[in-house]
Order: sequence, then C-alpha cells, then structure tokens
Amino acid sequence: MENKFTVALCQMQVVRDKNENIKHATAMISEAASNSDMVILPEMWNCPYDVSLFPEYAEERDNSPSLEAISRAAIEEEVYIVAGSIPEKQQGNIYNSSFLFNPQGEIIGVHRKVHLFDIDVAGKISFKESQTITAGNKITVVDTDLGKIGICICYDMRFPELLRLMALEGAQLIVVPGAFNMTTGPDHWKPLIQVRALDNQVFMAAVSPARDENASYVAYGHSIVADPWGTVLKEAGKGETIVYSDVDLSMIKKITSELPLLENRRSDLYQLIKK
Amino acid sequence: MENKFTVALCQMQVVRDKNENIKHATAMISEAASNSDMVILPEMWNCPYDVSLFPEYAEERDNSPSLEAISRAAIEEEVYIVAGSIPEKQQGNIYNSSFLFNPQGEIIGVHRKVHLFDIDVAGKISFKESQTITAGNKITVVDTDLGKIGICICYDMRFPELLRLMALEGAQLIVVPGAFNMTTGPDHWKPLIQVRALDNQVFMAAVSPARDENASYVAYGHSIVADPWGTVLKEAGKGETIVYSDVDLSMIKKITSELPLLENRRSDLYQLIKK
Repeated sequence: MENKFTVALCQMQVVRDKNENIKHATAMISEAASNSDMVILPEMWNCPYDVSLFPEYAEERDNSPSLEAISRAAIEEEVYIVAGSIPEKQQGNIYNSSFLFNPQGEIIGVHRKVHLFDIDVAGKISFKESQTITAGNKITVVDTDLGKIGICICYDMRFPELLRLMALEGAQLIVVPGAFNMTTGPDHWKPLIQVRALDNQVFMAAVSPARDENASYVAYGHSIVADPWGTVLKEAGKGETIVYSDVDLSMIKKITSELPLLENRRSDLYQLIKK
Repeated sequence: MENKFTVALCQMQVVRDKNENIKHATAMISEAASNSDMVILPEMWNCPYDVSLFPEYAEERDNSPSLEAISRAAIEEEVYIVAGSIPEKQQGNIYNSSFLFNPQGEIIGVHRKVHLFDIDVAGKISFKESQTITAGNKITVVDTDLGKIGICICYDMRFPELLRLMALEGAQLIVVPGAFNMTTGPDHWKPLIQVRALDNQVFMAAVSPARDENASYVAYGHSIVADPWGTVLKEAGKGETIVYSDVDLSMIKKITSELPLLENRRSDLYQLIKK
C-alpha cells in the first residue's frame, strides 16, 4: 500500500540574527506540524544566503544549536523535518547541508550540496558559492515510514543526471531546499520543478526562503509542490507563508503505468551510472 | 564566428491524401524559404499519425516520391530542410524517420525515432507506435554550414539522457518534429521544450502538425522555438501557420559562460555514456 501524507513547506523569512532564525523556524514548525506529516525548511534557513557569512554561521553536526532545536521540535511535534540547509563545519571545511529528522528527533539522512552555485550573469547576478563552501559527494535517498525521500539543494536541481539517479534509486518525493534569485527564479524555477517531476515520475517539493528585497541576495520565493504528471499542486507567492500539500504516492504507480517513461528508456543506447 | 540564421517551422495541416500532403509541403517550403535558411516540417507530414496507416504510406529511401519532392524543393529554394518525419520502409521494417537535406538537395542526416510512443492514459489516450514501427538505434547530430543540428522525434524528447548526449556531441540547435496530443500537449509540450533548451544550453525548434479535431489522433499544434535560457522566442497557435525565428548561435557562448551548466556537471559522481 502506498502512503498518502501531507507536506508543509515553510517559506520562512531569514534574518541576520541566527538565534532569531532558530526561534522563528521552530515556531513555524510548530504551526505547520499540526496539519502535516513532514515539515520542510528552506535552503540556509539559519543564515543569510551570503558566501561571506557562511563561515561565521557554520556549526558542527555534533555541536549545533540549530540542529538541536530542530531535533527537539521533531520530537515535540512528532513530525518528519527536512531542515532545509545550514552551513555545516567539519574538519576545516564548510558544506551546504540538509538534515532529515524522523519524529524521534534522529538524523536519518544528510545531503551536502554537490553542485556549487558559481554563476556570473552579466550585469544581473554574480555569486561564487565555492569561495567558502566545499561540495558534497553523495546522492541522497532516504527510506522513511512515509516513503523514499530524495534530497538535493538548489543548484543541484539543474542537473538532470542527479535527479534521474535519485529516481532510479527509488525516490518518490524529491525535496529541494533552494534559493533561486530574481534573475533565474522567474524564468527557471517553476518549469524546472515541473519537468524534473514529470521526467522522473516523482513528487517534488521545492522550498525557498521568503523574499527580502533588502538582502544582498534576493530570493525568489514561490515554494512549489509538483506531482508526477508535472502539475503544480501548490505554489506560494513571494512573502513568508506555509504551503500545505497532499502527496499521494499511489499516483506514481498510476502515472508510470500510463506513461512508462522510466521503463521506456533506451538503456541499450545510453547508460547513466553512479560512480 | 558563430552563425546567426532563421528557421521556419511549418505547422502543416496533414490530410489523408499523400499526394496532397507532398504538394502542400512543397508549397509551404517555397513560401517559408524566402524568409529563412532552414525549413522544418512536422512529424509524419506525409501521413496521418495513425499506426494502422504507416505501412501503407511508408516509402523506401531510394524510391520515395516524398523525399524526392523535398530534395527538389531544397535545390530550388536553396535552403536546408528538416523533412519532419515519414514512415520509412527498409527490409520489412518501418521506421519513423527524419531526413535533413542541404541546399544541394542531398540527405546529410537521418534520425530514426529511438523511443517509440507506447502509452495508455486511462480514458484519455492510448497509442502503441510499436505495433507497426521499429525503433532506430542512433543519436543524430549533423554538421552543417549553419551549425551543428541535432534531430530527435517527439517522444524522444521526453528522455533527458538523449538530449544531454546530443548537447555533449556539440548540438547547437535541436530540431524536434513532434505530435503531442490534447492530453499531453497542454501539460507537457512547452515546459519540456523550455527545460531541454535550458538544461543543455541549446536552441530548440519543435514542430507539430496543425490541429485537426476530426483526426483519429488530434495533434496539439503550438510549434515552438526556445533559446538556451529556456525562453520561448516564438509559439504558434493550433492552426496551420509558419513560425519564423532567428537563431543566434553566439548566445550559446554567452549563456554557457554566465551559467556554466555543462561545465559544472559532477562527472566524478555520475557519468552518462553512449553505448
């Protein structure tokens, strides 16, 4: 039997004060958890999205006020939490890391962003995440009682190979904490989410911070849930909000039998392998 | 120096009479060629899109009234032609084949559809192309004086692996003769074209037959040209029309330097290979 559950996407307004962000995230989780089974925070929810700030905000996994607060919230609210991402420190490196908590407050999955966001669009946006962030090296699909959850972060979503491999590993819902900006967001955010869901016959839940026009990096917002037909089920605006959506995993079976894309791949002509 | 040229997408109304289709196609090519460098016909332009008719309409490459007419038109109009597709007969098999003609009327590229369209969406659309069509086995990218032209056909476009490999082989413009229908067209046609262009940093020109509400298979229409930023440059409606669009290949260099997607692939984590 396939699960049906509810996700809550917290399109949170991230501020400069880390403690404020932690308090605010746990308050949003409390509110969201009463109507959902899995709560999702955005990319860099405890820290402004600014390369120069990542080192200062970074925490070690075993000594992390941010993650401890999320763990407690998961236990109290009895809910799964994908804790968007935070700058994670380990042995001198900093990663852009997402942590998946079960309702017992345990970390059952970690994704470190594997594609770093280094772009330079003339006169519009320049950003070089690799200045302070080190890339992860793993593809992340986690078994939970709700279903198989894949996690990738923002720019990761631009690489069809990664999401295809996640689907081939059985991901049913791919969660994408992501902060697109005002150049890429309006043009790319929605069609990318739709087509990744459609191509891979999975649900997608992409969660952005709320838009702050005064930030050095202005996030697009528009958190979205899409189904395996590529249909947008729910979409936020630019401001702070919680988006709730049902995720009925039985739809995957229906769609894959009607439109057997994964089955119709020509594995005799091409092959995508994980190295 | 990168080329700038004009494509003309002939969103042609296909009828039951093959000779009528041939006459009509050459007339549209004549009109289109006066304002373009490459004319593109839709999938199955000489034959209704109907599995039971493909055998009757099929022609051998060396004895083909349809292809001879196109070759003559290319010479007369001094234009490149991607002759959408026709049912091609060879040694007892029938292929869904697209032929690329140079202005000398020579066939310089052939793509046989590699992913056959076998779908069954409950209560909406059921189609089994493999009943009469045999799949091709090659990825098609052709060098021309205009640039490197990739060709795939309709359902082929649904497989990101194929288009990625075409881009990695240097395709700059991917031409897609395709007949989506009234179930898949409104939901999938446009975002798929946009995202394939965006992901692979190529131009896309996708050409549908005009919509015929009385046909057994009702094509969606909406022929589209998209640029490497994923922007739709031109889009047709449902009826017969010719869509003209400039294709400025210098944009590829600009976009790939701003948003280096192909370069940022993690080839150490995954690998897509042609077999």
